[in-house]
Amino acid sequence: MKATVKWVDGFQFVGESKSGHAIVIDGSKDSGAAGTAMTPMELLLIGVGGCAGMDVISILKKKKQDVHGLQVVVNGKTAQEYPKRYTDIDIEFIVKGRNIEESAVKRAIELSMEKYCSVKATLEGSAKITFSYRIEPVCSE
Amino acid sequence: MKATVKWVDGFQFVGESKSGHAIVIDGSKDSGAAGTAMTPMELLLIGVGGCAGMDVISILKKKKQDVHGLQVVVNGKTAQEYPKRYTDIDIEFIVKGRNIEESAVKRAIELSMEKYCSVKATLEGSAKITFSYRIEPVCSE
Repeated sequence: MKATVKWVDGFQFVGESKSGHAIVIDGSKDSGAAGTAMTPMELLLIGVGGCAGMDVISILKKKKQDVHGLQVVVNGKTAQEYPKRYTDIDIEFIVKGRNIEESAVKRAIELSMEKYCSVKATLEGSAKITFSYRIEPVCSE
Repeated sequence: MKATVKWVDGFQFVGESKSGHAIVIDGSKDSGAAGTAMTPMELLLIGVGGCAGMDVISILKKKKQDVHGLQVVVNGKTAQEYPKRYTDIDIEFIVKGRNIEESAVKRAIELSMEKYCSVKATLEGSAKITFSYRIEPVCSE
């Protein structure tokens, strides 16, 4: 895995990954930067939510669940002192669908959190990671 | 810090951060996904390169260095077995500028790596992080 991050100006950078995709990143307005894009610390939360979301959607599809939507809400808490690493990350999965089996959702999340999610496995060296889920039924018409 | 990741279709998700920015993420083509965007694991490399790059550019500016460019090249190695977390991350800083003092570059990188970079501090719970630098002079005309 390889990535290159190039300075544009201020605290704005363009990050390129080996797969040929690029994103803009910037410092936050709170820190005095222009705040034109996501911050590096925000990328970690998107990373863990995306990684877990991909696992869960894949497993639920294999389990023939009629999933209409999936949202992953990630909250991170950082240390007060520099370097202000993440100490706690909470992940909530909100699954929308028709006749979704709770046991399938529970198992999909467990498999992601305990076996497959490489971002979670990387971050949990520093941060305590907790997770929960909610199922929102889609009503029949 | 808060982020929400929403499923679009396939393995494609949109991640939104509290600061109001959004990015697309996707699984890699290698894994059978459409590969339309950066992967969650790539975001971690961009995150650490961006975080360190912002520190270094800030410190070099304070040290009155005439920086014309900064690239941060990040290489990550993952475990063979699931969950395939990052085990090693190497960060190379390439500083371009006029009359750049090597001591200033060395110190800026040390301060980022040892004191300020919150992404590095989060990732080093799992991954061994190494770093190096190269200075590329800009020739006078």
